[in-house]
Amino acid sequence: MFKETFQSYVTKVEQYLEKLPWSEGVLEKSMSYSLMGGGKRIRPVLALASADAVGGDPEEILPAAVSLELIHTYSLIHDDLPAMDNDDYRRGRLSNHKVFGEAMAILAGDALLTYAFEILAESNLCRPERQLRVIREVAEAAGKLGMVWGQVADLAGERKKLSLKEIEEIHKAKTGAMLTVSARLGGILAGGTEEQVKALTDYAQALGLAFQIKDDILDVVGDSETLGKPAGSDLRQGKSTYVSLLGLEGAGRELHTQVVKAQAALQPLEKKASFLSDLACYIEQRQH
Amino acid sequence: MFKETFQSYVTKVEQYLEKLPWSEGVLEKSMSYSLMGGGKRIRPVLALASADAVGGDPEEILPAAVSLELIHTYSLIHDDLPAMDNDDYRRGRLSNHKVFGEAMAILAGDALLTYAFEILAESNLCRPERQLRVIREVAEAAGKLGMVWGQVADLAGERKKLSLKEIEEIHKAKTGAMLTVSARLGGILAGGTEEQVKALTDYAQALGLAFQIKDDILDVVGDSETLGKPAGSDLRQGKSTYVSLLGLEGAGRELHTQVVKAQAALQPLEKKASFLSDLACYIEQRQH
Repeated sequence: MFKETFQSYVTKVEQYLEKLPWSEGVLEKSMSYSLMGGGKRIRPVLALASADAVGGDPEEILPAAVSLELIHTYSLIHDDLPAMDNDDYRRGRLSNHKVFGEAMAILAGDALLTYAFEILAESNLCRPERQLRVIREVAEAAGKLGMVWGQVADLAGERKKLSLKEIEEIHKAKTGAMLTVSARLGGILAGGTEEQVKALTDYAQALGLAFQIKDDILDVVGDSETLGKPAGSDLRQGKSTYVSLLGLEGAGRELHTQVVKAQAALQPLEKKASFLSDLACYIEQRQH
Repeated sequence: MFKETFQSYVTKVEQYLEKLPWSEGVLEKSMSYSLMGGGKRIRPVLALASADAVGGDPEEILPAAVSLELIHTYSLIHDDLPAMDNDDYRRGRLSNHKVFGEAMAILAGDALLTYAFEILAESNLCRPERQLRVIREVAEAAGKLGMVWGQVADLAGERKKLSLKEIEEIHKAKTGAMLTVSARLGGILAGGTEEQVKALTDYAQALGLAFQIKDDILDVVGDSETLGKPAGSDLRQGKSTYVSLLGLEGAGRELHTQVVKAQAALQPLEKKASFLSDLACYIEQRQH
């Protein structure tokens, strides 16, 4: 049941992405190359499932949910640039700048971020106050106190030993803020109560940490082919991770703690949140 | 009178910019370095004056007007990058990446763009439908069919001879779209009628071309010190410009034609648009 529901959310997202009107120009080719390059679509799935969890209709918030994937994709394109993480591969394919060149990769990222806000402001919803609130929250999560700050701190942190608290702060900003706002977006746009939105927030914050801890674990125990990127690269680069600080077992325990915390936060949403509860288990067990 | 009004708009913009809560972190230092680095503030001024021209209160739309300057600044930071125009100087100071490095310049641009949408969605206006319309229009003007496309076409055009029509298309996208949406933003948020907004649109489109033609002329006749950048760089790079295609006199005539067109478009706005009319003259005569 979990897998079918997950797949049905992903299918909605992929179908929406495929219907976007991409032109034949090189800019839009570059944008869609990265956008259509696979990925787990966790952010839009989280938004759609959160809409369901508050009793709303995920179909109605689909464009907004997809905009989260556009923002995620832009951040990956820019993170892969030579001036940043300098990654030649992403999800087993050449990264954007290796195919289209650096200038186009920067511009494709810029255009994806901008397009996300265009979609978020689309005039298809009847509650403009909710839409504005979501735009504010997404911009905050993606911006100078959220995702972008996280990337700055992550780049700076590569050159020094970090404490567990510092790692957690970086992850909360770099990936946690956007995951959290994904759940909130679904809850808010679908008309959830403030109590429900609060439950989704607590859930997504713990889920975000779990997601990151699992990433660190997979970097050590996963194989490159399944991961679609070289395994062990954190270790080789001497990066501070949950595993380097807590050990493999300690990281596994912390992962489980966060999963339990995420599930507990869902209580006010009752049975409607069963998919979200299963999603936390899925993240604990995923192999890539 | 024109100069005093212009200065009063600029002062409003500068005061708002100075009150933005910049932290001491390197990301926000990098953002504010470029944002506070001078510039004519044409886009916010155009928005404030357009609010005045439809009988609204410019003070009320100030945050939205300033967001246009954030978007403009982000585009300059990214355009100056080595992978793009590779400019070491901007407005007589070192460009962002020369001071903060490439990674930070990319991220500061990303964060400025994101922050602009956060401000545009601020909850200080009582007409959320208007705000959403403006966010859509700004995102469209800044994005893959507007400013970003213009930069892509401009980079591609550097390597070939362009026709007058091609140059015009590039400028309409690269600078025209944002100038036009600046005037529209002021008109729409201040409650202008559709006829008034149409007049502002026609005005700003002609003004945008005039602005670009004047830029091309100044590149030939201006001196580097007044311009804050090396004069004659278009010529040296063999770039197609209004001057290279029409000659200095022909470009001057085309400039004047656009200024007259801009002023004629203001007719439905009557006396309230006298500043905008003078602004078109100012652009024809400016020395930097």
